[in-house]
Amino acid sequence: MSLTLYWSPGSCALASHLLLEKVGAAYEAVRVNLAKGEQRSPEYLKVNPKGRVPALATEHGILTETPAILQYVCQRFPQAGMAPLDDAWALARFNSFNSYLCSTVHVAHAHRMRGSRWADDPAALEAMKRKVPQAVGDGFALVEKELLEGPWVLGEAMSACDLYLFTMASWMESDGVDPKAFPRILEHRERLAADPVVAKVVALERAAS
Amino acid sequence: MSLTLYWSPGSCALASHLLLEKVGAAYEAVRVNLAKGEQRSPEYLKVNPKGRVPALATEHGILTETPAILQYVCQRFPQAGMAPLDDAWALARFNSFNSYLCSTVHVAHAHRMRGSRWADDPAALEAMKRKVPQAVGDGFALVEKELLEGPWVLGEAMSACDLYLFTMASWMESDGVDPKAFPRILEHRERLAADPVVAKVVALERAAS
Repeated sequence: MSLTLYWSPGSCALASHLLLEKVGAAYEAVRVNLAKGEQRSPEYLKVNPKGRVPALATEHGILTETPAILQYVCQRFPQAGMAPLDDAWALARFNSFNSYLCSTVHVAHAHRMRGSRWADDPAALEAMKRKVPQAVGDGFALVEKELLEGPWVLGEAMSACDLYLFTMASWMESDGVDPKAFPRILEHRERLAADPVVAKVVALERAAS
Repeated sequence: MSLTLYWSPGSCALASHLLLEKVGAAYEAVRVNLAKGEQRSPEYLKVNPKGRVPALATEHGILTETPAILQYVCQRFPQAGMAPLDDAWALARFNSFNSYLCSTVHVAHAHRMRGSRWADDPAALEAMKRKVPQAVGDGFALVEKELLEGPWVLGEAMSACDLYLFTMASWMESDGVDPKAFPRILEHRERLAADPVVAKVVALERAAS
């Protein structure tokens, strides 16, 4: 087995990082320094032509996109029980949740620092930043009310969805979202933060940032 | 078996619509009229609190998010062979491709008509519209160069990825993207358009729009 995670502190790569630890994978973690623009270096673009993190190098090739990485790692380490692999409907809910975080919540968040993906005008970038608290908050409101079944995202068992939600929820304050408006997500975040494996990776990422 | 697809012509629900036909599913198709705002009606919000299409109602509950619907339908109709279900790495590539279309290409496209998700200032919405050809084009450039293996997205076998790419590629002209800049995607789109099942669904959607 040979796995290498390309990650950066404070990025959504945290979800994959947490999962690799949770399943007990042997892997190497390679930090990509976004502040120094390393994601745009010729070396890194050979790893991931998208110029983003995370990327997971395997003996088959390189995998990108958090929802795909999460299901793949769960399938590769089935004994860890981090996805409902034997139930197509439950797995569909797993993927629906992760896709929502990826394509709606993360995208709303990205309008704070990465608005230049979608507009060039500096005033437009400022207008995007102003709406981040509402857009991200709307995403969490749906999670709070409709998606977080409790105690874990999918109900009785922890899954990779919980690690992804924890990752997004760790951005709330910097996105101008008041966690107290989302008591169920806040309680979930605090519960995860107290998990020894989660705490270890969070401390490692903090030390690197 | 009981499946109902909530769809709207011209939306990304086309990918799920095409797949249901391709796998030979028995299903009901319910049109949601976005122009009339039906996606925001109390009745539809009971189906999908996100107020969007597609949504797939099943005997287990309602599923949203195109990448999740695609894998689920493939798992439910495995004999159709529309996903590499028995190969975790190939399935990871399947999900990585679909996640990229969902969270990058579709999101870039959405800045043309749905910019109010991310900013309120009318000038900002115009600035977003101006960048759509470039942002969507950048997405297709990556597909053309890196992701579309050929002849199908995943290589030798057609999969649900091809139906999703066809759906996104059908928006090129209205997004100000010149399909001739992407000859491999254009050839793929023309090949799909000539498929009798695809042609049937496209004609049905056109007649409804």
